[in-house]
Parts: sequence; C-alpha cells; structure tokens
Amino acid sequence: MTVLGLGMMGTALAGAFLDGGHPVTVWNRTPGRAAPLTDRGAVYAGSLAEAVEASPLVVICVRDYRAVRSVLEPAEALLAGRTLVNLTSGTSEEARATAGWAAGIGARYLDGAIMMTPPGIGQPHAAILYGGSRELFDEHEATLARLGGGTTRLSDDHGIPALYDVALLGLMWGTLNSFLHALALVGTEKVEATTFLPFATSWLGGVATFLPDLARQVDEGAYPAHDATLETHLSPIHHLVHESEVRGVDTALPRSFRALAERGVAEGHAKSSYAALIEQFRRPAG
Amino acid sequence: MTVLGLGMMGTALAGAFLDGGHPVTVWNRTPGRAAPLTDRGAVYAGSLAEAVEASPLVVICVRDYRAVRSVLEPAEALLAGRTLVNLTSGTSEEARATAGWAAGIGARYLDGAIMMTPPGIGQPHAAILYGGSRELFDEHEATLARLGGGTTRLSDDHGIPALYDVALLGLMWGTLNSFLHALALVGTEKVEATTFLPFATSWLGGVATFLPDLARQVDEGAYPAHDATLETHLSPIHHLVHESEVRGVDTALPRSFRALAERGVAEGHAKSSYAALIEQFRRPAG
Ligand SMILES: NC(=O)c1ccc[n+]([C@@H]2O[C@H](COP(=O)([O-])OP(=O)(O)OC[C@H]3O[C@@H](n4cnc5c(N)ncnc54)[C@H](OP(=O)(O)O)[C@@H]3O)[C@@H](O)[C@H]2O)c1
Ligand SMILES: NC(=O)c1ccc[n+]([C@@H]2O[C@H](COP(=O)([O-])OP(=O)(O)OC[C@H]3O[C@@H](n4cnc5c(N)ncnc54)[C@H](OP(=O)(O)O)[C@@H]3O)[C@@H](O)[C@H]2O)c1
Repeated sequence: MTVLGLGMMGTALAGAFLDGGHPVTVWNRTPGRAAPLTDRGAVYAGSLAEAVEASPLVVICVRDYRAVRSVLEPAEALLAGRTLVNLTSGTSEEARATAGWAAGIGARYLDGAIMMTPPGIGQPHAAILYGGSRELFDEHEATLARLGGGTTRLSDDHGIPALYDVALLGLMWGTLNSFLHALALVGTEKVEATTFLPFATSWLGGVATFLPDLARQVDEGAYPAHDATLETHLSPIHHLVHESEVRGVDTALPRSFRALAERGVAEGHAKSSYAALIEQFRRPAG
Repeated sequence: MTVLGLGMMGTALAGAFLDGGHPVTVWNRTPGRAAPLTDRGAVYAGSLAEAVEASPLVVICVRDYRAVRSVLEPAEALLAGRTLVNLTSGTSEEARATAGWAAGIGARYLDGAIMMTPPGIGQPHAAILYGGSRELFDEHEATLARLGGGTTRLSDDHGIPALYDVALLGLMWGTLNSFLHALALVGTEKVEATTFLPFATSWLGGVATFLPDLARQVDEGAYPAHDATLETHLSPIHHLVHESEVRGVDTALPRSFRALAERGVAEGHAKSSYAALIEQFRRPAG
C-alpha cells in the first residue's frame, strides 16, 4: 500500500505495514523524512501522483483534515477506484465531509481514529476504530489489523470514530487531571508521586469495575443505588473540598464535583446512584 | 474483637472477622441490627460498656467523627490500655484530633480508611489504609488483614489515610464524570452506553499505563514530552469542546480541560508533557 504523510504517526504506520511484510510506497510533503523506512525496503515516491498510482490502497495520516484535502485534491482523478483510508484526527463533521468528497470523486473511503501513540502502533492493545462500509472494511481488515490488535469497525457512518476518539480522550483528560490533583494533595504531606502511584493504579482498576453498572443504568434510564447514593458521595466530596482548601491546592476541580452532586441531589436524585448525573452531562449548561 | 457500629460497613467488617474465625462482640446505637451477625455466632453486647470490656481490640465504624466521639466518650475510662481502630471516614484533621484524644485517655490508636464498598470487604482487592505506629499495626496486622488483601500502613501520622482516601476518591469522581460525559456524547448518535463500555474499559487500562511516567516527572519537576506535548493535546481538546457544543451536551467539563491546557501553554509549557499541569493543581486558584 501507499502511506501519505511521514510525521511521527505516518512513519509508525508505514513501519507496521513493513513489519507485516507488505510492499509499502511512501510520500511526504517535505522530502527527506523517509530514510528510516526506505532503509527497511519502502519505496519513496518522487511525486504525489506516483505515490497514489503505486497502490490500490492509500493510507493518509497528516496533521489535520485541511492538510488531507490540500494533499489529495491535486490527485482527485487518480484516486477514483482506489481505497482511501484516512487516519488523521478531526471532528465527526470533517470525517463525514471528507467521506462525501471521496464519494464524489469515486474513491472508496474508510475513516479511522487511532487510540495509541506511535510507539504502540502494531501492538495487540492498539485500538484503531473505523467508520465506513462493512464490505470495504472486511476487504482490508487483515491488512489494517497490522496497525493494532484493536482494529474495529464501529459503524457505516464515517463520523463515528472521530466521536469515539474525543469521548475516549475526554475520559483520559478527566482521569489525568484528577490524578494530578491527587498528587498535589498528597504532595502537601511530602508524599512522593511515585509512592502514591501504586495505590492510584490499583484503585483505578477498582473504579473500572464500577463502569458496567453505570453504563447499564444509563441505558435503562433508572438509577437505583446498590452501594452508594449521591447523598453518600456528597459527604466525602465535602472532605475533598475541605482538604484542598486548607492545603492550598486547586479547589476548582473538587468544587466542580460538589456542584454536580449537589445539583443531582437538588433535582431529586439524593437516593439515586452516581449514574443519575448523566442527566446533567446531557445538557449544555453543565 | 469488638465492632461498634452496625451500619452497612460495620456489619460487613464484623462479618469478615467472623469469616476469619474470630470471636466477635458487636454493638450499635440503635438495637435490632445485629441479627445477621448473632445468627453467625457474634455476641451482642447489651451496653456500650460491656462491648468495650469484651475485647482488647475495639473497631469502630459509624457515620462520621462526631458520631465516633459521641459513642466513645462515655467509655473513655474503659478504653485505657485497649487498642482502638477507627475506620470511619473523615478529614485528616479529624483523624489527628481523634488520635490526640485517644492518647489522652491512654488508648492505643490506629486510624484507617476503607477504599471499598461493603460487599468487597474481606476480598483480596479491598484496600484498607492505616495510620499509626508500626509496632501497633504489626501487632494487629494478621487480624486486620481479614478485612481486605490491601491492608497497608501508610505512615505514623494518623491523618495520612484520610488524605489518601479523598485523593483516591477524587480520582474516581474525575474518571466517572468524564465517563458519563463520554456516554452523553456518543449517546447523541444513539450509541448505547453498554456498546461504548468495552472501548472505555480497555482505553482506561491504557490510560493507567501513562500514570507512572506522569508520577516520575512530577517527582523530578521536569516534564519532557516523550509522545505528546501540551500543545498536541490542545488540538483534540478543541475537537472535544466543538463536538460537545454542536451536540448540545455539557461543555463545562471540556472547557475546564481547555482552560488547564491553555494556561499551561501560556505559562511556557507548550512543549512540555501533560505532567506540567501539576503546577496549576498545586495552586488554589485552579
Ligand atoms: N502522535 C500521536 O500520538 C497521535 C495519536 C493519535 C492520532 N494522531 C494523529 O495523527 C495525525 C498525524 O500526527 P503526527 O503525530 O504524525 O504529527 P507530526 O509528527 O506533527 O506530523 C505531521 C504530518 O502532517 C504533515 N502535514 C502537516 N501539514 C500539512 C499540509 N498542509 N500539507 C501536507 N502535509 C502536511 C507533515 O508533513 P511535513 O513533514 O511536510 O510537515 C507531517 O507528515 C494527526 O492528526 C494526529 O492528531 C497522532
Ligand atoms: N458504605 C460504603 O460504601 C463505605 C465505603 C467506605 C467507607 N465508608 C464509611 O464507613 C462509615 C459507615 O458507613 P456505613 O455505610 O456503614 O453507613 P450507614 O449504613 O449509614 O451506617 C451508619 C452507622 O453509624 C451509626 N451512627 C450514625 N450516627 C451516629 C451517632 N450520632 N451515634 C452513634 N452511632 C451513629 C449508625 O447507627 P444507627 O443504626 O443507630 O443509626 C450506623 O451504625 C462512614 O464513615 C462511611 O463514610 C462507607
């Protein structure tokens, strides 16, 4: 196949295809970034047209969707009849617009989101999520699976992977921010971050076991409290706010927890489980 | 030993001691809650004095520290020479004040924080964190370990478990809130929470692997970016804010992510790793 874009991610993608024994043609806007790949047998195309013409399967991974279009528009005619797999990050609207454009020029199109950093590409735990037709995905699945064990088609809708992408990244930022807040808090007692780490990691494994129940209750729209009610959460939330205040660390994050739980209680969810807060997240105000 | 307080947690604690084959005496402010335990061989004490006199080791778990003091103050004289283990949740100040009071009446004191719901008490993955002297902890460790595999002494300082407790709970709320936000987001495309769940769970396992690097950088006070710079995070954060806006779900959480990252960049950390945000969490303003 052909890989367009040899930044950190494009280079990792092309490398994983080479590891899988595939013939790979590569191209980048700025020349001179292909040496690590040509050393391993990749062919560097002298022009974009040559790169696209070299393979029926063209994978692109550049900075953003604007870059995708500016790379590909000169090659529109050549893309007709080929399969284009776009692994650039963006919004669901951009993914859908690009799918529309691809259909217009007669290219078959898959949009993908990469939930992994470049060093993890090709590993069993690298999740790469696709949107597009089942038939097209099935045709290329064995090849695409070289990029990661978690190669999954989510939907016919090309916009869905981008949505999962930001939803999952949001879960990451929420987790990382509260981890850093925890480090700041225990740091006021000179507890080192690496001392606290094993407790956090093992606790996070426990928190993961709470998610299935939350998810089921969100789907059912009923929030019976099996262990802790929202009211029960409020008391340790007050302790967290208090510890943050007296220790002079960030109070914005714990106050945001308090505001959510208090609003939940005010809206009649004192005896509901934590899942009841989904109702607030579904509204713009927050 | 004696267990004072037979709410959901006290009942689970006494049950785990019974499972371990220990003779257990129980007491509760409101009578009539002991049947599930006396059926299994526990002795119900007719008075608080009888309960305390029954054992050299007295475990208390009631609603809050005010309840602890109101239960125990009538029995001050009887507590002299005994070991008191307080597993009630509170702040580090309350834990230290209670340790001071216990020392004053000649009781030996351990303060503990339970990172588990009642059904998990006694399981290998139940973490129960203690503060108090090593000698006292060592003496009772085998008994206390009946309550959970993660029975650990953190410090001589009785206030430390309460601090770990809220820090770890904060990690939980941060994770749960961003999980619920993610569900609200994918829910706008009618993706069921239980459909999204396996992606979230597996991704959270990946996020856990980012924590050791963050912790090490926080300890070292240097934040070199190995994979993603703060600037790199900003672009998908903008996508998350945008998707939340156009889909009409909560924008407060994604905007808080953006504010943190933008402030980090403004403070000179554009090329630093995410760990640089610790500096903001260490300050009151947030
Ligand atoms: N790195 C990660 O951890 C990661 C993880 C998941 C997803 N992603 C996504 O993968 C994509 C690529 O990321 P990366 O890490 O490879 O970034 P990078 O190392 O900064 O590389 C950017 C690539 O985009 C090209 N490019 C930028 N603007 C262009 C334009 N106007 N026209 C043509 N080419 C242009 C660059 O070409 P030049 O060499 O000519 O500048 C380079 O090949 C991004 O959408 C990113 O969000 C990255
Ligand atoms: N449940 C959990 O998931 C969990 C997890 C970790 C930590 N904890 C902590 O464990 C402690 C107990 O929680 P729980 O779940 O057992 O709560 P609970 O089921 O509501 O029971 C509360 C207990 O406290 C007693 N109590 C309350 N006020 C009292 C007072 N003024 N004087 C004497 N006794 C009083 C109650 O006695 P009466 O029967 O007379 O009302 C009852 O035994 C709390 O600090 C909680 O934060 C709970």
